[in-house]
Amino acid sequence: METNHKTYKSETIDEMSINTIRFLAVDAVEAANSGHPGMPMGDSPMAYVLWKHFLRHNPSDPKWLGRDRFILSAGHGSMLLYSLLHLAGYELPLDELKKFRQWGSHTPGHPEHDPRIGIETTTGPLGQGFANGVGMAMAEKYLAHKFNKPGFPLFDYHVYAICSDGDLMEGVSNEAASMAGHLKLGNIVYLYSDNKITIEGKTDIAFSEDVGMRFEALGWQVQKVGGNDTEAIAKAIEAAKAETSRPSIIIARTIIGFGSPGKQDTAEVHGAPLGKDEVIATKDKLGWPQEPHFFIPEEVQKHMNAIEGGKAAQKVWLGLVEKYEKEFPEEGKELRAMIDGKTSGEWEKALPVFTEKDGNIATRSASGKVLNAICKDAPFLIGGSADLSPSTNTIMKGMGNFLSDCVGRNLHFGVREHAMGSVMNGMALTGGLVPYGATFLIFSDYMKPPIRLAALMKLQTIYVFTHDSIGLGEDGPTHQPIEQLAALRSIPNLTVIRPADANETVEAWRAALKKTDGPTVLVLTRQTVPLIDREKFGAAEGLRKGGYVLSDPKEGKPEVILMATGSEVQLALGAAEDLAKRGVKARVVNMPSWEMFDSQPAEYRNKVLPHDVTVRLAVEAASPLGWHKYTGPDGDVLGITTFGASAPHKTLFEKYGFTAENVSAKALALLNRKKGLFLDRI
Amino acid sequence: METNHKTYKSETIDEMSINTIRFLAVDAVEAANSGHPGMPMGDSPMAYVLWKHFLRHNPSDPKWLGRDRFILSAGHGSMLLYSLLHLAGYELPLDELKKFRQWGSHTPGHPEHDPRIGIETTTGPLGQGFANGVGMAMAEKYLAHKFNKPGFPLFDYHVYAICSDGDLMEGVSNEAASMAGHLKLGNIVYLYSDNKITIEGKTDIAFSEDVGMRFEALGWQVQKVGGNDTEAIAKAIEAAKAETSRPSIIIARTIIGFGSPGKQDTAEVHGAPLGKDEVIATKDKLGWPQEPHFFIPEEVQKHMNAIEGGKAAQKVWLGLVEKYEKEFPEEGKELRAMIDGKTSGEWEKALPVFTEKDGNIATRSASGKVLNAICKDAPFLIGGSADLSPSTNTIMKGMGNFLSDCVGRNLHFGVREHAMGSVMNGMALTGGLVPYGATFLIFSDYMKPPIRLAALMKLQTIYVFTHDSIGLGEDGPTHQPIEQLAALRSIPNLTVIRPADANETVEAWRAALKKTDGPTVLVLTRQTVPLIDREKFGAAEGLRKGGYVLSDPKEGKPEVILMATGSEVQLALGAAEDLAKRGVKARVVNMPSWEMFDSQPAEYRNKVLPHDVTVRLAVEAASPLGWHKYTGPDGDVLGITTFGASAPHKTLFEKYGFTAENVSAKALALLNRKKGLFLDRI
Repeated sequence: METNHKTYKSETIDEMSINTIRFLAVDAVEAANSGHPGMPMGDSPMAYVLWKHFLRHNPSDPKWLGRDRFILSAGHGSMLLYSLLHLAGYELPLDELKKFRQWGSHTPGHPEHDPRIGIETTTGPLGQGFANGVGMAMAEKYLAHKFNKPGFPLFDYHVYAICSDGDLMEGVSNEAASMAGHLKLGNIVYLYSDNKITIEGKTDIAFSEDVGMRFEALGWQVQKVGGNDTEAIAKAIEAAKAETSRPSIIIARTIIGFGSPGKQDTAEVHGAPLGKDEVIATKDKLGWPQEPHFFIPEEVQKHMNAIEGGKAAQKVWLGLVEKYEKEFPEEGKELRAMIDGKTSGEWEKALPVFTEKDGNIATRSASGKVLNAICKDAPFLIGGSADLSPSTNTIMKGMGNFLSDCVGRNLHFGVREHAMGSVMNGMALTGGLVPYGATFLIFSDYMKPPIRLAALMKLQTIYVFTHDSIGLGEDGPTHQPIEQLAALRSIPNLTVIRPADANETVEAWRAALKKTDGPTVLVLTRQTVPLIDREKFGAAEGLRKGGYVLSDPKEGKPEVILMATGSEVQLALGAAEDLAKRGVKARVVNMPSWEMFDSQPAEYRNKVLPHDVTVRLAVEAASPLGWHKYTGPDGDVLGITTFGASAPHKTLFEKYGFTAENVSAKALALLNRKKGLFLDRI
Repeated sequence: METNHKTYKSETIDEMSINTIRFLAVDAVEAANSGHPGMPMGDSPMAYVLWKHFLRHNPSDPKWLGRDRFILSAGHGSMLLYSLLHLAGYELPLDELKKFRQWGSHTPGHPEHDPRIGIETTTGPLGQGFANGVGMAMAEKYLAHKFNKPGFPLFDYHVYAICSDGDLMEGVSNEAASMAGHLKLGNIVYLYSDNKITIEGKTDIAFSEDVGMRFEALGWQVQKVGGNDTEAIAKAIEAAKAETSRPSIIIARTIIGFGSPGKQDTAEVHGAPLGKDEVIATKDKLGWPQEPHFFIPEEVQKHMNAIEGGKAAQKVWLGLVEKYEKEFPEEGKELRAMIDGKTSGEWEKALPVFTEKDGNIATRSASGKVLNAICKDAPFLIGGSADLSPSTNTIMKGMGNFLSDCVGRNLHFGVREHAMGSVMNGMALTGGLVPYGATFLIFSDYMKPPIRLAALMKLQTIYVFTHDSIGLGEDGPTHQPIEQLAALRSIPNLTVIRPADANETVEAWRAALKKTDGPTVLVLTRQTVPLIDREKFGAAEGLRKGGYVLSDPKEGKPEVILMATGSEVQLALGAAEDLAKRGVKARVVNMPSWEMFDSQPAEYRNKVLPHDVTVRLAVEAASPLGWHKYTGPDGDVLGITTFGASAPHKTLFEKYGFTAENVSAKALALLNRKKGLFLDRI
């Protein structure tokens, strides 16, 4: 490769490296004819300083537990990250950069969690990376407290991020920043690329707050530097690292599209290729050779490669671990399991069984009992609620509170559902921890974006969503979920489970803890539900298949199938009994998890829902959306297509038709009109 | 009613009034055996000062356009509001307070928008009321600029709110506060009830930021007062009103559950009745008579009644309007229409028709053209995007930018989707304005909570969601909506429209502007789509029925129905053509809006989807959830059950099976296996 030194002004290796990063991004966006060049062009100096001089990582072992974390929260600048990863020596060959944004490449439009090549989290939806980092920092502090011993600073890494105006405008970042300040997360060092440009123009059309002052108010260390002043950036990062009792933000006045004579400092350069002529002009201006595209000077390749340094650093760390295992065998065992990515399975033995003497209890209460039964044997579990723990029953008693000392397994997220979700993702990404987060089902709406990202990344996060229907009663329609179940069920990779009683709640937790390749939502009642008599009806283990036959007619084939979930299962059972009295043979199918049921072999599904029983009634106190897949043409759904209302829950169930009598009547009507027309019944 | 003066210590009428408010809440929560007494007990002094001495309103005409707005953002303290409304003289009799949280009452658990009795907005989900108020304040500033003339300060009201710790922890309030500071909304006066208690305990377990400093950083005037110091509160409100170039927040150190000897200043009093004994103790402590419950001293009833004062104030305002109408007849006409709740219908004549010469255009572009064609004749339209207007095509050219001068109809929300939604609700609640808000469909997730509230309140808001499928291409799975359509369709009262081409986009806007009893979502493509040849196929007016026959076999009954929406309609048309060549008779049904289709008479629906054509294939590049309602048992859905990927859109459509060839092949396969089993095809 010809380095062609004379034609470009990059006189120092620093400048050369920065320009290499910059123009890899420019060329990749140009090749893809799509992407965001402006941010990498402006942010390459600070990214270079951070990666070259501070980031502790080993590109040949990207999963090293003791590594620093780097998050590109401003995910649209993905080429910045890909350039850095390639130059540092991760398994991301230049060919991949040339396939930026193409089918099957490892260089998608926005960074996608890819632990094999050092992409720590999926970013792009703004604010998420910022908040993920807070979760990672919390996890590190927790692990440090759990494992570190004098002389053994096993967990002492930093969480770095580059974030943008957009990240800081999103509410989720303020929630997370408030938490980080409160928790005194001194391990956070964020670089804020303050380039004063957004898609619609200059930030001053919409964003004129004093960001530094806001972060000071939130308890952060705040520094300001010039975005091209590499020396000042380095000093600021030093100072941020030295500040151990406050998170740090470095406000760097960057220049979007730096170097482009025609587009620098404009919105135009944010999200579109520079265009051939402007690329030429920019390379000219910065003294960069026009050819080859994707040019990497040899000296830069060498200078930026982080493998040797990384290996050495990791070796020191592993040596420390080895010594630690000898001196503290018990903790060492747990640590080793974490390094190997294994979590204890002891918890399963501790799962409770509910019996008649437990009486009728709400599934949220049963969930609390399960959690408390297993938490000692599930040391990887850490979680809390968005200021609703007395209602969500999600406190693990005796496991301590995670306050600003970062000790304890009970998290207090405050009234910040969105940050809760994003922080959970950061914790799950850390390794060795399974976070849960709780709130009312209705407020899943506030945290949808991070739930989606957990599903996209296939993280093991557990959402405990209680108060799951109009059954929550008096709080009224603002608090009564209607469409939330449908919304959650529509998310790919997410498992939604709505258990019918306490013993199914046990099974739901079991399923959630065993599902390591994606998030799980537990949907739980506020109101008490009867304990299903498992001697009379199907066993609770049926939940493991997502849907199962709970009861069948005493003899003969069923004429009607009643399907239900959660608190409505009891109504289906009652209706079946009533129908039996009327000589109608009904089967009750409990359908706690559509996703789990759909993943069963067709043979099983056909056994539960036989083709020849086409009179099917689904009963769920929620939007009927999606149920027709199971009810078929002669079927119907007893659901809710309006909003709820404020009244005691028994009144509401009655007014909305959720009684065994009405279920029975609906089933009878269905049977009677079996010969009727299809669409009339929609 | 016995006033029983001697037994209570409320020596001044102020104290008596405050205790009346306080104990109405206590008694109502007790009677309901459910609710939140702590907040009304602590906040009654400041609420009293505000309502008695500042709030300009007329309880006998709650819709008076010139009234001050009051929002109880901390909606769980609803009894505070109901007490105030009752005492002020709104049509909310004491009997309604006695039916707090009961079926059919006007006193639900959380305040529900009820313009007849002065409830300005629905609150409860925290942060929403705060942000609604910002929208109301923006609307007022806009109207003031539009109508006010020297000597005619027609719009000079204030937006007051009481908000809580929870409101201020939620990200949406920070987004909205940042906007309010940026826009210098001096008409905002918020009281923050800083009671240091949340549901999980003291706020200091999760919330230790310097709120005052944060708000200063956001450009707000900040004052601090004692929550029981009525004089200081009054002075602070005065000062806040005097500050006309910054929004104001008054941080009042309130005491939750004030007066309760056993529960004051604890989390316990937040969300549960005091209990009989504690009620007695509290009434004793504050010198309030034990009996009767719901006690209102006559002098308080008189003192708090705001009807006479309100009538007088409104009369002055109406006199001013009358004079204004004479002096400025043109503006006067528009103002009168607003007062009468009518908006101009001229815009409909300006709707464009797209013809062949317009070529193939993306529906987002068509939407931009529609908007620009009608905006002059639709003066009530005001809107913008969350920093994506160049992509969402939502700028109304020549209509000015709404910056800190609050002039212009193009709003710049910044990267703040959540606040955008809540602000839109506040604007829609003001009267006379129809707000629209735009972003990518994927980011509807960020603003789900206010979309839901718009639907619950049946507000006319319009969401312009572009980049509506994997068809957006290279930005990848973080930006590609999959489940968003299903999520939106599951919201009651919301109309979702996904037009197939430019002319349907015209119809979609028409429908959205005519639907005055609920919000509408327009779902639009990034990529170009062909203009459907309306001479060959069904007319675009078919969209008005939500679903319609676009094409039918040349002769004979169809054997197959292909259903599709948006950009997939062209694939269905292509497939039908291909099937015809193979001798298969296919009908193409365009289903742009399920909600609009479902609201048609059964006769029409049966005509479009005849019962005897049971081989039906739905085609939509999104989650299949919900489609089975239309496809029935012998049908299938060509949808997406995974996430998207980063690649050019044509590649993606091909890789995910969205080609006319594949649609045709799927339809053939369906026909062939018509006799097969039902569930195997799910």
